[in-house]
Amino acid sequence: MYNIVYSQGGVCASDGFFADGISAGLKKGNAKDMAFIYSEDLCEVASVFTTNKMYAAPIRHFRQMGDFKTNFVLINSKNANAMTGQAGVEDIKEVLSFCPLQAKNPIMSSTGVIGVRLPKAKIIDGMKLFDLSRRDSACAAKAIMTTDTFPKEIAFKVELDDGSSFSMGAIAKGAGMINPAMATMLCFITTDANVSKSEMQEALDEIKTTTFNAISVDGDTSTNDTVLLLSNGRSGAYNKEAFKEVLFKIMHFLALEMVRDGEGATKLVTYKVTGAKDDREAEIAAKALSDSLLVKTALFGEDPNWGRIASTVGASGVEAYEEKLKISFDNLCVYDRGEILFDAEMEKKCAVIMQHQKFTISCDLGVGEGSFKAYGCDLGHEYVKINADYRT
Amino acid sequence: MYNIVYSQGGVCASDGFFADGISAGLKKGNAKDMAFIYSEDLCEVASVFTTNKMYAAPIRHFRQMGDFKTNFVLINSKNANAMTGQAGVEDIKEVLSFCPLQAKNPIMSSTGVIGVRLPKAKIIDGMKLFDLSRRDSACAAKAIMTTDTFPKEIAFKVELDDGSSFSMGAIAKGAGMINPAMATMLCFITTDANVSKSEMQEALDEIKTTTFNAISVDGDTSTNDTVLLLSNGRSGAYNKEAFKEVLFKIMHFLALEMVRDGEGATKLVTYKVTGAKDDREAEIAAKALSDSLLVKTALFGEDPNWGRIASTVGASGVEAYEEKLKISFDNLCVYDRGEILFDAEMEKKCAVIMQHQKFTISCDLGVGEGSFKAYGCDLGHEYVKINADYRT
Repeated sequence: MYNIVYSQGGVCASDGFFADGISAGLKKGNAKDMAFIYSEDLCEVASVFTTNKMYAAPIRHFRQMGDFKTNFVLINSKNANAMTGQAGVEDIKEVLSFCPLQAKNPIMSSTGVIGVRLPKAKIIDGMKLFDLSRRDSACAAKAIMTTDTFPKEIAFKVELDDGSSFSMGAIAKGAGMINPAMATMLCFITTDANVSKSEMQEALDEIKTTTFNAISVDGDTSTNDTVLLLSNGRSGAYNKEAFKEVLFKIMHFLALEMVRDGEGATKLVTYKVTGAKDDREAEIAAKALSDSLLVKTALFGEDPNWGRIASTVGASGVEAYEEKLKISFDNLCVYDRGEILFDAEMEKKCAVIMQHQKFTISCDLGVGEGSFKAYGCDLGHEYVKINADYRT
Repeated sequence: MYNIVYSQGGVCASDGFFADGISAGLKKGNAKDMAFIYSEDLCEVASVFTTNKMYAAPIRHFRQMGDFKTNFVLINSKNANAMTGQAGVEDIKEVLSFCPLQAKNPIMSSTGVIGVRLPKAKIIDGMKLFDLSRRDSACAAKAIMTTDTFPKEIAFKVELDDGSSFSMGAIAKGAGMINPAMATMLCFITTDANVSKSEMQEALDEIKTTTFNAISVDGDTSTNDTVLLLSNGRSGAYNKEAFKEVLFKIMHFLALEMVRDGEGATKLVTYKVTGAKDDREAEIAAKALSDSLLVKTALFGEDPNWGRIASTVGASGVEAYEEKLKISFDNLCVYDRGEILFDAEMEKKCAVIMQHQKFTISCDLGVGEGSFKAYGCDLGHEYVKINADYRT
């Protein structure tokens, strides 16, 4: 057995890790826009990247490095270094050659506008401001934000039975172009657990499905989505089950934080699909709901328009029948296998549920045993405002 | 050879067809909300319906009728009669039993809110106002509108070489839940051509792909999408090639009218994808572009954010490479197979193009010979406003 307890310090909660954010002048008005994560020891790295075929230069650079250990991650916001081709990769190599001397096999991660070359001089100058002795994870979390409205970080300590312990912490950013498969989401997780690269990668691949890959803000999958998990082994401690549980806790928490902070979002909605033919069909239906513009705008209007839920499930392509479908808002069933339970009184009750910041919409397809939970947000005027003029 | 000339009268342009719209009190304030199309002669019927598995009661009723000829279509707006099960079908049968005596095998078509039983009494009372001698197609087009801002109708006369001629006319409604595969779109086409049912159906199935199935307002496929093509054979004239050409002209025009009148839309954008592996992949990429929230909001903001175009193509799952992709706004190429041509001057030129009500975004994937044109609109505050509180 083991205990998992909350901890402070984000990525710096893990022993031997340092981080900070600075302003290199990429964003307007001295806002933080560059961060580093540094480990005194070399780290094993597990990774998940976007499935977008136009994956950005930092991902290309990472893949070209082959098998390596690193102790330094450089991150910038405001510029995604995407659609910049091999030239974008060369820009990264040049920038990284100016890293602090302690950096071994440094890697880079970027988020922001697509299709603009990296402002190399500003980044190289900015790096001079890095102080590798700082442990300001919150500041690093702030520096990687784009349209995020709050920084995202979390950490846990895992206490094992034999008295040993390890820590795991993370920072992330989200907000838009979020339909990770992976998106413009970035997430950096550190741990001092004594874990092998293959076990880290296996845990990451397993857990991404029900966490980052289960969320959607706008159904658009970005060019830069990246989750990096760095372990320096410092604690000497490890327990596979505990490791996976704490990794799930971290990724699940940050995934939901991303939805909660979705561009213009005011609500965090769980779409729980059960009774599907199989888990894959449940996933398709749940994600169709979290991506539907008509569902999202109804959420924003706090309008319990359950017909749009039914229509979206029907249009998603999965096996479904009007006579077998059940739809509920939280525990309130509005449509039960052919019977419309929704009346004026129930409409009032549903409207109250929808005024909450968090609620669940459940669809039981009544076909099989498949189930999936997806997480989405509403779409309101703020989303349009943010995205109609993103680049300026 | 043959000539195709514009004609007046919408669905009444075809010989022997009558139509009108009236107010049955379904919509507020005496707005027209019920229409009929009546033919003195029995008609062959070809049809295309939604692929949504929750298809509405009128479609269920139509399918249960088996093989039949009809001369009467009853259409109502404000209530979709969807998610109402077999009870919804029985409602239709009851309502249709009150049709004018001249109606043979009458059919019904509905659009509006999902999940509410038909207000039968109002509809039956409303039918008493029908005057089967009226030829007011424009009024019928108005009565079937929901969030449409203008009625949609068109008609053509086809003059054949032998001096004979036939006509074809149509009315349609669109506006929201538009991703026809089919959508809440309804389209009724009449013709007096002497055409067989099988040839009508074949033409309809062929032409739907590049017309109604190529448009998207919000990526949501409705429960009620219906295209009906009625022929009474009165003209005695027919020419297969001319018939297909005029049917394409009508469906293409009305499809684009639907996008132009998409909920809150201010722009009609053609997404032209070429160089795809095959036509199917071109269609997937083109529709991904017309459905992307990030692309749609950039259009609304008149922001030539070509990176979102690239990212959307990359995320669509089709074969694509950063080094082979070309992106243009109208004839202005902004990204050419690895080279970013987009600079401050070009940005100004692109912004001017985007101020137009109609323009084309082209993507050459450089992979194969596949091509497809999809049609979409922007997404602005009006869309959110319309859909956040649709039912009230």
